[in-house]
Amino acid sequence: MQYFKHVVNFYTALKIICVMSKKLSDIQKQFPEWYQDVVYESQLADQSPVRGCMVIRPYGYAIWENIKDILDKKIKDSGHENAYFPIFIPKSFLEKEAKHVEGFAPELAIVTHGGGKELEEPLVVRPTSETIIHHMFAQWIKSWRDLPMKINQWGNVVRWEMRTRPFLRTTEFLWQEGHTAHETAQESEDEALMMFHEYLDIIKNYLAIPAIPGKKSESEKFAGADTTYTIEALMQDGKALQMCTSHIISRSFSRAFGITYQTREGGLEHPYLTSWGFTTRSIGAVVMVHGDQKGLVLPPKIAPIQVVIIPIFKSDEDKATLLSVVQTLAQKLKNSVRIKIDDNQHMRPGEKFFHWELKGVPVRIEIGPRDIANGTVVVADRLGLAKETIPFDKVIETVHARLDLIHHELYKRAEERLKKKWHTGEKIAQFGPTLEKEGGFYQTGWCRKASCEEHVKKFKATIRCLLDEVTFAECFFCNETSASDILVAKAY
Amino acid sequence: MQYFKHVVNFYTALKIICVMSKKLSDIQKQFPEWYQDVVYESQLADQSPVRGCMVIRPYGYAIWENIKDILDKKIKDSGHENAYFPIFIPKSFLEKEAKHVEGFAPELAIVTHGGGKELEEPLVVRPTSETIIHHMFAQWIKSWRDLPMKINQWGNVVRWEMRTRPFLRTTEFLWQEGHTAHETAQESEDEALMMFHEYLDIIKNYLAIPAIPGKKSESEKFAGADTTYTIEALMQDGKALQMCTSHIISRSFSRAFGITYQTREGGLEHPYLTSWGFTTRSIGAVVMVHGDQKGLVLPPKIAPIQVVIIPIFKSDEDKATLLSVVQTLAQKLKNSVRIKIDDNQHMRPGEKFFHWELKGVPVRIEIGPRDIANGTVVVADRLGLAKETIPFDKVIETVHARLDLIHHELYKRAEERLKKKWHTGEKIAQFGPTLEKEGGFYQTGWCRKASCEEHVKKFKATIRCLLDEVTFAECFFCNETSASDILVAKAY
Repeated sequence: MQYFKHVVNFYTALKIICVMSKKLSDIQKQFPEWYQDVVYESQLADQSPVRGCMVIRPYGYAIWENIKDILDKKIKDSGHENAYFPIFIPKSFLEKEAKHVEGFAPELAIVTHGGGKELEEPLVVRPTSETIIHHMFAQWIKSWRDLPMKINQWGNVVRWEMRTRPFLRTTEFLWQEGHTAHETAQESEDEALMMFHEYLDIIKNYLAIPAIPGKKSESEKFAGADTTYTIEALMQDGKALQMCTSHIISRSFSRAFGITYQTREGGLEHPYLTSWGFTTRSIGAVVMVHGDQKGLVLPPKIAPIQVVIIPIFKSDEDKATLLSVVQTLAQKLKNSVRIKIDDNQHMRPGEKFFHWELKGVPVRIEIGPRDIANGTVVVADRLGLAKETIPFDKVIETVHARLDLIHHELYKRAEERLKKKWHTGEKIAQFGPTLEKEGGFYQTGWCRKASCEEHVKKFKATIRCLLDEVTFAECFFCNETSASDILVAKAY
Repeated sequence: MQYFKHVVNFYTALKIICVMSKKLSDIQKQFPEWYQDVVYESQLADQSPVRGCMVIRPYGYAIWENIKDILDKKIKDSGHENAYFPIFIPKSFLEKEAKHVEGFAPELAIVTHGGGKELEEPLVVRPTSETIIHHMFAQWIKSWRDLPMKINQWGNVVRWEMRTRPFLRTTEFLWQEGHTAHETAQESEDEALMMFHEYLDIIKNYLAIPAIPGKKSESEKFAGADTTYTIEALMQDGKALQMCTSHIISRSFSRAFGITYQTREGGLEHPYLTSWGFTTRSIGAVVMVHGDQKGLVLPPKIAPIQVVIIPIFKSDEDKATLLSVVQTLAQKLKNSVRIKIDDNQHMRPGEKFFHWELKGVPVRIEIGPRDIANGTVVVADRLGLAKETIPFDKVIETVHARLDLIHHELYKRAEERLKKKWHTGEKIAQFGPTLEKEGGFYQTGWCRKASCEEHVKKFKATIRCLLDEVTFAECFFCNETSASDILVAKAY
């Protein structure tokens, strides 16, 4: 027994050393390395033996499940129905819409053999499902009475990416893709914008990320779409990340896939289409917008564990009493809060604090023998906003208030960083070099000519989106009149 | 206006003719055709342009979501965590476990090209994820403290099947696959059995299907497993369907993938593994066990629509009042029941009854002008158990009681059919010909020799499972002692 205790102590000491040695890279100087460290050390994801694919570990997947629940409810409440379409798409389907195949051809994974034989026609592993869903729409839509048709799919897609990073860009990723068909152009525009606003609501009010809604330029829009709405956010290293997109596809795909319906007047028309998607990339954004030197910082509304309760044992005698009080406390909280009790007896409190900070748990409750005697608990949080000793019967309201505060504080901090890195500039010749060096958003004017857009790329940047305002008279490159403002940035 | 009314009447008449012409095949004489008719006509699924793959339409997917919610809760409540692993698996991984590759090789879909180039090593589209998950287990499991490791994945898998049928056997299907690792053989057995019993609970108490738990024979078990537990159900045509399986994988895969952990005693051991899965095939079973000549019959607990409310307009004047009463009624019900109001004004009540019967909705509420005057509604059901006129304030309790009754009645009817088709037989030479002709389960004895098992196949049957009882002295084929009873049947 004595011997065993030594072994345990030795093991504990060893673990502390291990934990310490896994120090994260410097967030200020080595952002990409810091990002990967956080993703792997906090166990959001792991590298897989398959090129460009990651494993989403339980902690990361639980975040995705939370996002999915919120988004799925929005999708259903707005009248869409979930369905499931094959992961394989005949290669010829992609070729039916010229721009679509041009956009996706370089990224395709191709199945050439099945059941031990070479296939007559190779199958593409879906990079997105417009083609197969529109093929089915053509079977299902006959009359105006069948419209609008509003379908959503939760699933996996594959795009063969050259350079991959966990969550941000992986060969396979998870998402939802919505596909709808409508009688009028106006309805399809309303639909694309409605989902766009639901996405914005999730990003701002659940992920606590201040983000900028806009439209994509012709060269950056979805392959085959008329209009692509995008939501752009700024990461802590000054690079932009496209959070999600919503497309007005108009009738290009209806024509390509022969979707026609009998109108109210008895004529035959092609319906107007939309599609929109939200992916596991959003988890990468959460890491890069809120994380710090200690690791993850999770917005309360999507955190798998919102509160970790850590009983602090001073002696073996304390344990039973402490654990029973902790159970009572947990019982009180767990109807309204996602909690975890860390009663691991092989780790010291300090190690546990370190561990749950790395994992970004918003609120920590500490409870020791003295607290039991006083009928109190200590409530601390991941942002270090306050460490209060509060009476037992105030726990629920304190925790809820703190979670709320953390959400708002996270949003505020991110918004302040965004403001600091949001610049304006008249001509790219002037602001380009600083943009290339330091990142950030640059608001400027653009004439809408592709030849001018090309000059942004010289500074390793892209036009992230067209804004809905006109504050610049001239294009950032030529002397022509600006059609509207744009945001320029380097991007993931 | 007058003209328009004629057009509408004509349209309605046309629709009735169309509906009538889509009569289902005869369930008694043409069961496979009837099955496909029901699946497609009720819009559970549709044929896809991809060989062997189906489209799961919203109505079918909603059933899967209901099953998923129930099962996901059970999986989480018993301490498993969801995660996500790549859909692609290096071909060499499958080859690491000899029996596994032998079992799955003929069914693989192979990706040979990605991003426009031929791959150095072809990738397999996962037929099941043991190999890649065990590869990750080898990275994650170091010490006995990491055990048990209990992971579950919801996703799609691909098996290149020769003959496909919607839900029952498709090239791609949806499922959950659980994968766990344990310190002892006993623990892994407990785990496999625990999930097996959860599956049985879902099948009996949610899908209302009486099913038989047993073990697979050596030749029928999962490729690479020590023991495969199976749940077998009997369809209305007398054929068996394997509902799901749970495997004790033991240490074959731990060895193949180099999963080792430091034991409590400081040694190095391979953990004991399990895996278990439940698929969209279960929806096919629901159709084939409960369906009838009118179409689908859905067990209330998984029905996407539990109650359809049909207002019966006698004149245009009735409409406003009726619809407002229907809304009040819907409001009362929708907190505890999944409802649908069918206020389509282009279909007559008779057509609507027909439509919702085809879709298997358990309870129908009819409400007309006379009901409004009397403060009553009419409650009917899919099984024709009762058609009662009940006062408004009794609606909720009546509906709940009826849903409950329908569940039990469905189970009872299926159980009676099962009993009628459950025979015993001493020697296959005697019962084989009837089995081949008429189907059903045959309980008999077996010595466990593969050479005897071969003789079952001559009658187009297989050993569905080994039972936990010994009521036959001799093997069904040879004269050796029977090791235990078995169930023999033709199967899907």
